[in-house]
Amino acid sequence: MSKHHKKYKKYVQKKVFTSPGTLEYVGKDVPIDTVVKLVEFNDEIYQQKIVKSISECQLSPIETHVNWLDVDGVHEVHIVEEIGKHYHLHPLLLEDVLNTEQKPKLEHFGEQNIFVIMKMLQFNEALNEVETEHVALVLGKNYVVSFQEMHKSDVFAPIFARLKASVGKTRKGKADYLFYSLCDLVVDNYFVVLEKFSEKLEELEIKIIENPHRDDQTALYELRRELMQIRKAVLPLRDIFGTLTRESSELIHPNTIIYLRDVYDHILQTLETIESYREMIENIQNIYLTSLSNKMNSVMKTLTVFTAIFMPLTFIAGIYGMNFDNMPELHHPNGYFYTLGSMIVISIILWIYFKWKKYV
Amino acid sequence: MSKHHKKYKKYVQKKVFTSPGTLEYVGKDVPIDTVVKLVEFNDEIYQQKIVKSISECQLSPIETHVNWLDVDGVHEVHIVEEIGKHYHLHPLLLEDVLNTEQKPKLEHFGEQNIFVIMKMLQFNEALNEVETEHVALVLGKNYVVSFQEMHKSDVFAPIFARLKASVGKTRKGKADYLFYSLCDLVVDNYFVVLEKFSEKLEELEIKIIENPHRDDQTALYELRRELMQIRKAVLPLRDIFGTLTRESSELIHPNTIIYLRDVYDHILQTLETIESYREMIENIQNIYLTSLSNKMNSVMKTLTVFTAIFMPLTFIAGIYGMNFDNMPELHHPNGYFYTLGSMIVISIILWIYFKWKKYV
Amino acid sequence: MSKHHKKYKKYVQKKVFTSPGTLEYVGKDVPIDTVVKLVEFNDEIYQQKIVKSISECQLSPIETHVNWLDVDGVHEVHIVEEIGKHYHLHPLLLEDVLNTEQKPKLEHFGEQNIFVIMKMLQFNEALNEVETEHVALVLGKNYVVSFQEMHKSDVFAPIFARLKASVGKTRKGKADYLFYSLCDLVVDNYFVVLEKFSEKLEELEIKIIENPHRDDQTALYELRRELMQIRKAVLPLRDIFGTLTRESSELIHPNTIIYLRDVYDHILQTLETIESYREMIENIQNIYLTSLSNKMNSVMKTLTVFTAIFMPLTFIAGIYGMNFDNMPELHHPNGYFYTLGSMIVISIILWIYFKWKKYV
Amino acid sequence: MSKHHKKYKKYVQKKVFTSPGTLEYVGKDVPIDTVVKLVEFNDEIYQQKIVKSISECQLSPIETHVNWLDVDGVHEVHIVEEIGKHYHLHPLLLEDVLNTEQKPKLEHFGEQNIFVIMKMLQFNEALNEVETEHVALVLGKNYVVSFQEMHKSDVFAPIFARLKASVGKTRKGKADYLFYSLCDLVVDNYFVVLEKFSEKLEELEIKIIENPHRDDQTALYELRRELMQIRKAVLPLRDIFGTLTRESSELIHPNTIIYLRDVYDHILQTLETIESYREMIENIQNIYLTSLSNKMNSVMKTLTVFTAIFMPLTFIAGIYGMNFDNMPELHHPNGYFYTLGSMIVISIILWIYFKWKKYV
Amino acid sequence: MSKHHKKYKKYVQKKVFTSPGTLEYVGKDVPIDTVVKLVEFNDEIYQQKIVKSISECQLSPIETHVNWLDVDGVHEVHIVEEIGKHYHLHPLLLEDVLNTEQKPKLEHFGEQNIFVIMKMLQFNEALNEVETEHVALVLGKNYVVSFQEMHKSDVFAPIFARLKASVGKTRKGKADYLFYSLCDLVVDNYFVVLEKFSEKLEELEIKIIENPHRDDQTALYELRRELMQIRKAVLPLRDIFGTLTRESSELIHPNTIIYLRDVYDHILQTLETIESYREMIENIQNIYLTSLSNKMNSVMKTLTVFTAIFMPLTFIAGIYGMNFDNMPELHHPNGYFYTLGSMIVISIILWIYFKWKKYV
Repeated sequence: MSKHHKKYKKYVQKKVFTSPGTLEYVGKDVPIDTVVKLVEFNDEIYQQKIVKSISECQLSPIETHVNWLDVDGVHEVHIVEEIGKHYHLHPLLLEDVLNTEQKPKLEHFGEQNIFVIMKMLQFNEALNEVETEHVALVLGKNYVVSFQEMHKSDVFAPIFARLKASVGKTRKGKADYLFYSLCDLVVDNYFVVLEKFSEKLEELEIKIIENPHRDDQTALYELRRELMQIRKAVLPLRDIFGTLTRESSELIHPNTIIYLRDVYDHILQTLETIESYREMIENIQNIYLTSLSNKMNSVMKTLTVFTAIFMPLTFIAGIYGMNFDNMPELHHPNGYFYTLGSMIVISIILWIYFKWKKYV
Repeated sequence: MSKHHKKYKKYVQKKVFTSPGTLEYVGKDVPIDTVVKLVEFNDEIYQQKIVKSISECQLSPIETHVNWLDVDGVHEVHIVEEIGKHYHLHPLLLEDVLNTEQKPKLEHFGEQNIFVIMKMLQFNEALNEVETEHVALVLGKNYVVSFQEMHKSDVFAPIFARLKASVGKTRKGKADYLFYSLCDLVVDNYFVVLEKFSEKLEELEIKIIENPHRDDQTALYELRRELMQIRKAVLPLRDIFGTLTRESSELIHPNTIIYLRDVYDHILQTLETIESYREMIENIQNIYLTSLSNKMNSVMKTLTVFTAIFMPLTFIAGIYGMNFDNMPELHHPNGYFYTLGSMIVISIILWIYFKWKKYV
Repeated sequence: MSKHHKKYKKYVQKKVFTSPGTLEYVGKDVPIDTVVKLVEFNDEIYQQKIVKSISECQLSPIETHVNWLDVDGVHEVHIVEEIGKHYHLHPLLLEDVLNTEQKPKLEHFGEQNIFVIMKMLQFNEALNEVETEHVALVLGKNYVVSFQEMHKSDVFAPIFARLKASVGKTRKGKADYLFYSLCDLVVDNYFVVLEKFSEKLEELEIKIIENPHRDDQTALYELRRELMQIRKAVLPLRDIFGTLTRESSELIHPNTIIYLRDVYDHILQTLETIESYREMIENIQNIYLTSLSNKMNSVMKTLTVFTAIFMPLTFIAGIYGMNFDNMPELHHPNGYFYTLGSMIVISIILWIYFKWKKYV
Repeated sequence: MSKHHKKYKKYVQKKVFTSPGTLEYVGKDVPIDTVVKLVEFNDEIYQQKIVKSISECQLSPIETHVNWLDVDGVHEVHIVEEIGKHYHLHPLLLEDVLNTEQKPKLEHFGEQNIFVIMKMLQFNEALNEVETEHVALVLGKNYVVSFQEMHKSDVFAPIFARLKASVGKTRKGKADYLFYSLCDLVVDNYFVVLEKFSEKLEELEIKIIENPHRDDQTALYELRRELMQIRKAVLPLRDIFGTLTRESSELIHPNTIIYLRDVYDHILQTLETIESYREMIENIQNIYLTSLSNKMNSVMKTLTVFTAIFMPLTFIAGIYGMNFDNMPELHHPNGYFYTLGSMIVISIILWIYFKWKKYV
Repeated sequence: MSKHHKKYKKYVQKKVFTSPGTLEYVGKDVPIDTVVKLVEFNDEIYQQKIVKSISECQLSPIETHVNWLDVDGVHEVHIVEEIGKHYHLHPLLLEDVLNTEQKPKLEHFGEQNIFVIMKMLQFNEALNEVETEHVALVLGKNYVVSFQEMHKSDVFAPIFARLKASVGKTRKGKADYLFYSLCDLVVDNYFVVLEKFSEKLEELEIKIIENPHRDDQTALYELRRELMQIRKAVLPLRDIFGTLTRESSELIHPNTIIYLRDVYDHILQTLETIESYREMIENIQNIYLTSLSNKMNSVMKTLTVFTAIFMPLTFIAGIYGMNFDNMPELHHPNGYFYTLGSMIVISIILWIYFKWKKYV
């Protein structure tokens, strides 16, 4: 929790005591410089360049060309601010771009911009945990501006590759189709993350069914938290894409709607999978608790059997250890052996009794 | 889980790194060839043929004839693709046909096609588990195209038989009535599967009420998972058929709507049954846990009775096993017998006490 | 469960492999013949006859007369079929009439018929369980056709009696008022059944609070199932009568709507009562479990007190039963009595200690 | 439960076997006569009289005067019936007035009457329980008819007093404002009852946290039932007053709507409080159960410490109580003291071990 | 609870027995005088004064100036009443201002006023608990009246500071923007409070996972109550700001709506965080209970191992402590040592057995 916590704290400190609408970065410290890439393409040409200064961000004058400005890193406030001015983006939009704690949202800024915030999830194999990356997409008339939290790898790399290679429909599509491709990429990654999750869950499930251990409870708790984190990233998307596919906007061509509906379907599927994992965790938890009770029962039975067999025997031995002057059995030549014999008989009877009661 | 898991993995690997809209099969490997059947009928004639090449798929020019193209197996992408081109089906529709992991959905492609994905459930007696089969139905003006995941048996066999035998209303109906018949068949099968499920549940219920065993918890868990699987297949159909019966479409005649409403009613009934089974599992789980506690109580009582009776007796025996020089009772001629007598009295009193406390 | 189960099986076998729309009886075997009664009345006259052949079912030509055809028994398919043809009832309506497993539903067949399926519940004193009876009502312009599953007694007997005796508003009303009276009768019976249920629940509640027994868990489970059965019969009626009171139909006069709203209110009240019983069962279940824990605690304390008191004493006795040559206490003339005294002191101290710890 | 039960039974017996719409009293037997008061007032005059015969119930001919007929007692059917005829009230309305088991409801009878049933709750200090009183209000053009179940005290006494004293807005208001004042009084009483409830809950909470006792479970159960009873009275009012404040009616002036919205707000607040008490009961239940487990743990630890310390010691004593011929230690002059010493050492070590394991 | 309780009581006593609409203060006693500040500003000028008498509250005649009357303390009824008359505020509005127990609400008084009640939450470090402060905001054409429960510090201090310093957009905005800034401040404080809460929760979580103690249950219970308190303050705001951003009013400029939507987003985020904390508490509760069971298991195992090892040994010692005349083993010269040896062997075997059963 502490990691999350620290980011949150920062947000609180910065946010509360400043005027609303003031631009400020909320998120982890990033030591590297922001990288801004500008791509211009249609089905015939493809140009990509690294933008050094804001003046190079000029949109292509050719209306049929699609422009994509990809901003990798949102920790340098002035860069985001300049881009915002250049593209006439609303200050609240920029505030949300800079706040990596902002939950997924959809905002229409008139007919000028559609603005979507999503959470890219990626499984970090090294740390064995899910990492959340803040992604903000702005769709304009013939351009897309994408902001991503700075990270080891560019999350949109597959789209760049696909555009360059000119495979699929991506190059033939307009800005709205590119927008869809980016959303689709983010949502598809949820499947990958959930797959990893399901592997961990399955492992734990087998372990608990076979031989539950007291640490498993904590492991289960960790998985539940991880699932909550994933769910938090996906759940708001249901409403967002539900709205996107229902409402008509000049920025999204009706032909693209059917593709967005496909993304919407995938989100529903993801949520359903999350829900079923949640139920599974609940069930595994039950199995764990029941197995604890079963174990307790088994321990109790062991104790009872030992006690109930040896107590009477010890008692008999105690009887003949008494020092009364007149104890006729003691002087019988086979008294000892008869006593041993009756002890054996008693223990056999008790054993059978407990066998019948399913104690052993 | 592992079986499901593998399919899922495949989906993930293939899907994420390809352009959206690229056709690809997602599902189990199937070694057999796809079988495509074309049926043409009205209330007077009935013709059925196995289609060898795509050119044979020509729809009948007579408008009043109903054409049914049944594609048994969706693992050969090129076949599905060719059929798609031939019938002008939307690429996303084909993508869903090929993805056997796709959850049930309804899609209108203008006034040209109504597209439904359902999950056929069948109980596999050999494996004692429920098998899910991917079924996709496309309704056009005077034709139906049905896709089914390749399986041992053709799931639509009863419809073929009924059409051939010319019983019932099926032959007199148009394409929408055939479409309804196919949906009805899938939904009716849910009753069969739930019946099997109820048998297994009933068996376990009796076993747990009579004599709970620690493996029953796992069995209950398995049943819960199976029910979740069934529910996952049925739940989305509620919305789908709710929409189908409400919205008007040129492809579905108002007279057929009342039949679809019947299917909708069956789906509601199925869901209600699933919900009641779910509640039953919950209750059986409670009974199991309570019986564990009851058992524990009973074990504890046994232990307590044995301990509480023999401890005082052993103590008395211990007293007279002491070696003090001056212990007057030891020299009484009947001391031993008095002692034995008082031991019997004490144990009888304790026994009555525990009887009164309902310990024995 | 087995009883329910058998009926269900029959449904499955018959239904799945026949063409949809084929008429078939689904339900218990009934050895007696169907009884069909035709009643014709207005506020002045009242005629009742047992119908022998279908030709006698002719509706009265006088429009102001109300006709009521009461079909007692739905197991003879041909009778239902003939009546259906005679009154021009839709095949799907007849299918639902014959399927005693069909859950409650409301169907409008144009402006010609309103069709309602309800479940009559009756408490069988002999078997100490609730019995469900399938009731189907068809409201036409000036007639009502009622179908009831064959049973010992005619469930509509009170209505017949009331009509004959000409008490209340029933004779003055039209067909829609008769329809309302029949619905009202069915719903009022739910109160009777719930009253019986509440008696059983109350009995069990007192028993569990006073002295819980391990069979009570099973009894509670049975009650829960019974409540689920009742709820299943009542729940769909909420929507049905909600719709009936909202939607306007030529068949139901606005004056009757207010009466139907009264039925609707009773249904809501019934559902609320069911919900409160459900919560009560939940709470009784909790009390039961808690009392188990309490009992366990009490058993454990008994065990602990016995063990903790006698263990030290036995140990002391053991000490002086040792055979060392040099044990000075043994030769003290009052050693034995001092030892006995200290044993008494120790047990008193321990007793006080456990008293203080609330163990005894 | 039995008390409630008896009333319920009566309802069932009377209701089911009579024609719907027949007037009949359902409720507790009341030995006293009904008291009917008629008040006529405007902001200047105030007249109050006890009505002896129905002919005295005449409404004031002056339109600006407000008439309030307060019927204290609904067990005399003929009185209610006569009033109903006099004021042209619908038979179903009267039926609901007479049925003290009727849950809260709102009914519009055209533009003539608004009819509301509420439950007055009062805390009976003597019986330490909440009492429910049936209250029915009929709002007409310039009159209000209020029916109340006969009770020790007139629940509307404060309103009478306020009208007489001419304080507040009540005298200046019209019939709808009087209607609002009556509703407001009933709802304000919920706060008083909930306050009493909160006192009891708080008391129990402190008791359970400090020293849980087995009777507390039953006490908690009683509180839960009481809360359910309160909730049953309040919950339907949310919809009723929601509707009253939304729908426009000629009987309620728009200026009064804002006051009814205030009542609505209080109802929401009451429901929220109920919900929070419900959650608190749930939590206290958890604390109780956990403390049971904690106690059990503590008992078990005591048992374990006693057993584990004295068992080895007794065993050692047993060793040297054996009668072997050749046991060299026995003849050592200090053997006894060495043995005692080692026993002390062993018990100290075990004590430290259990101290470390947090058993003591 | 007692603190809350006392305030509640006061409310009940005062409220129930007075005419509705009578102004009365409900809340804690406050010994200090109310402070009323009047601010007048536009983007150029800023004037602030402490109001001594009500005649100084005159709104600025210049329409483009924004007036803000901040009333710090609502315990002096006459002051609130005078302000109400001066600004023509509705009596019910004033009643809500004075009732510090009133839950958050939104009320439109025609096109004249928008009235919002919120709860300011602040974490009191000294008492280590969350304090709730009643805040009421009235938005008029070119003025805002804010009421706040008297408290150590003025909660709106940051806004005053910002206005004075002329930073951000606040000075350029109209009354609706000021209104937004005040709402935003209240909502932003929820983040601070939740951060504190999360710290406490995290601390407890770590403690319980590492080493659960019986007091932790009570601590968890306290946290749950605190969260309930926070939730109660925030939950109604969702509807309130949902309505504010949807409905159009002349008092709120469309440009401000987008800012209010931002507040709405923060509220959603807060609620989501609360929900996730709630789930976390639930999970920690589970971990606690499970760890109790685990501990019990461990205690039981210790007991069982001790008992099961020493019981047989003591029994053997008992055997050879018997005083039979004829016990050949006793006279064997090494009998004693053989016996000791076999005791060691038996205890090793038992130890291995319990090791294998995972008891030690």
